[in-house]
Amino acid sequence: MGEFDLIARYFKRPVRRSPLGVGDDCALLAPAPGMQLAVSTDLLIEGRHFLSTVDPRRLGHKCLAVNLSDLAACGAKPLAFTLGLALPQADEAWLAPFAQGLLALADTHGCELVGGDTTRGPLAISITVFGEVPTGQALLRSGARPGDEVWVSGTLGDARLALEVFRGTRQAPQAVFEAARERLECPVPRVSLGLALRGVASAAIDVSDGLVGDLGHVLAASGVGATLRAEQVAALPALALSVQDRLDFALAGGDDYELAFTAPAAARDAVLAAGRASGTAVHCIGVIEAAPGLRLVDAAGHAVVRPVAAFDHFA
Amino acid sequence: MGEFDLIARYFKRPVRRSPLGVGDDCALLAPAPGMQLAVSTDLLIEGRHFLSTVDPRRLGHKCLAVNLSDLAACGAKPLAFTLGLALPQADEAWLAPFAQGLLALADTHGCELVGGDTTRGPLAISITVFGEVPTGQALLRSGARPGDEVWVSGTLGDARLALEVFRGTRQAPQAVFEAARERLECPVPRVSLGLALRGVASAAIDVSDGLVGDLGHVLAASGVGATLRAEQVAALPALALSVQDRLDFALAGGDDYELAFTAPAAARDAVLAAGRASGTAVHCIGVIEAAPGLRLVDAAGHAVVRPVAAFDHFA
Repeated sequence: MGEFDLIARYFKRPVRRSPLGVGDDCALLAPAPGMQLAVSTDLLIEGRHFLSTVDPRRLGHKCLAVNLSDLAACGAKPLAFTLGLALPQADEAWLAPFAQGLLALADTHGCELVGGDTTRGPLAISITVFGEVPTGQALLRSGARPGDEVWVSGTLGDARLALEVFRGTRQAPQAVFEAARERLECPVPRVSLGLALRGVASAAIDVSDGLVGDLGHVLAASGVGATLRAEQVAALPALALSVQDRLDFALAGGDDYELAFTAPAAARDAVLAAGRASGTAVHCIGVIEAAPGLRLVDAAGHAVVRPVAAFDHFA
Repeated sequence: MGEFDLIARYFKRPVRRSPLGVGDDCALLAPAPGMQLAVSTDLLIEGRHFLSTVDPRRLGHKCLAVNLSDLAACGAKPLAFTLGLALPQADEAWLAPFAQGLLALADTHGCELVGGDTTRGPLAISITVFGEVPTGQALLRSGARPGDEVWVSGTLGDARLALEVFRGTRQAPQAVFEAARERLECPVPRVSLGLALRGVASAAIDVSDGLVGDLGHVLAASGVGATLRAEQVAALPALALSVQDRLDFALAGGDDYELAFTAPAAARDAVLAAGRASGTAVHCIGVIEAAPGLRLVDAAGHAVVRPVAAFDHFA
C-alpha cells in the first residue's frame, strides 16, 4: 500500500463544511464572520507520550483528544484538523483501528480532517486543530485576578496511577487499573464545558502536565498567585489511592486533560450552571491572590509541603 | 534547559498581527474579511527527509520552505505557522542555528510563529502553515482543461543530483555538488509567483515528489491527460548532467519545490508577465489533453519512454 492509497483508504472522507478538504496542496478554511480561528498543535511520540503496546483505536482517540482539550481551554468550538503521521510501515491492522478511534472522536465534535502528511519514520503523530471563538471571547491564561476562585473540572490524578502501575511503582486491583488506564488512554476533552465557560471564567488552561505546572502558567501569565486547599485537591482523584498519592497525583499527575480555570467569586452560580449544562463536575479548590506563587494549606490554614513538580519533557 | 525555557529562548518573539501568539493554549488567527485561510501541514523526519549531518540553519529554512511551497501552489499569502518539534536533546548548538534559519525565512515572508509543541524524541519537525487567499481564488489541482498549456517554474532535477552524490551513484565537481546541495537543502518557495498566478493559472501544484507524480495529481483531479515535450523537460535542470539524467531527474527528481501549473493558451502573455513580476523563470513544457495519462514525446512527436516514477514514502 503506497502513501496515497493509505491516505485515500483511511483518511479521505467527504468534507462537509470546509471549502476544500484532503487532497489539494492546502485545505481552505473560512471562519464565520465575527469569529477568530483558534489553533493548537501537539506532537505525540512513541515511547514518550504512549507505549508501543497501546490499543491503536485508543491512540487515535487520544491524539485528537489532547488537541481538542486545548480548544476547550480557549472556549473554542472545534471545526477541523490536520494530521501528520510518521509510520514505521503501512500496517493495515494498525491503521484501520487508529483511523476509527481518531475519526469517531472527530465526528462526535463535528471536527473535520482537512489535510495532512504521511511519511515513513519512527511512529509520530502531529495534529493541528482549528476551532472558532467569537472575537474577544477566547478564554486566556492571563485573565485571573486576586479574589477569583480556582476551579478544576472532573477528576485529577487517576491517569497517573496507570502510569505508575506500568512503571512498577504501584499495584492496583485489575478493575482499578483498567479504570485508571481508561483515563490515561481515553481522555474526554472538556469541549462543552469550555464553551459554557465563555463569559464566565476569567482564565483557563487544560491540565496536561500536572495541576501545579499548568495552573502555574495561569498565575505567571496573570501576574498573580494562589492558595489551594489540600483537602479539596486530595478529593480530586476518583480512584482508590493512598492519602499521599491522592494529593501528589492530583497536584502533578499528568495526562488529566481536565480544565483548570478561574472565575470571580460572584460568578460561582454561573460556574456551577456551566458545569451542569455541560454534564461536567466542577470543583472549587482555592483562591487567586495578589502575592505570587502557589501555596497549599490544610483545613486550619497551615502550609502543606509536597515535593511535586510539573512534567517537563526536557528536565 | 527545560521545555518552557527552550520555547522562550528560541521561539518566543513579539507577535505583530496575530491576536494571540505563542504561550496560550491556542493561537488566535483572524483572516481578513473576504479571505479564506489556506492550511498545509508537513512532517519531516531525520533519515527520511534530511540527513543527520545537515546544517541546522539550512534545515530550519527548509522545514518552513516546503510548507510555504504548498501555500504558493494555492496562490495564498503566508500569514503564520505552528511548529511541532521532537528533539533527542535540548542542544543549544543545534537549536540556535535551526531557529535562525527558520525565523529568517519566516521574516522574509511575514509569516509569524504563533504556536507549537516541543518534546523529546527522535528528531522530527512538523509545521502547519496558514495563508490567506480571496474566497474562490485559490489555485486548485482540479482546474486543468484540454488545450491548457503546462508550465514549470525555475529549474527541476538539480536537487536530485545532490541526493545521488550522497548515495554514491553519481560524482560531480565540488562546485556543481555544492550548487546541487544548495538546491536540495535551501529550496526557495515560489510564493510571489503563486500570488501572481491568481486568476491566470487554471491549476497548480508544487513539485516535491517529482514532476511525473505531482503533475499526475493535477491530471487525476482535473480528469485530463497531458503530453510533455522531452526536449523542454530535459532543459529544466540548471546543472551539468548527462542527457539521460537531465530527463530523468527533471521528470522524477524530488525536492524541487517549484510550481507546476496549467493555463489557457490565451493566457500565455499573462503567465510570462507573472513570471517577470515575481522574478521567477517560467517554462512551457507541454499541453493538457482530454485523453487520460501522461505522455512524453520528442521533437518529431514520437513517444519517449523513461522508467521514472514519483517518490512514494511507502512504496
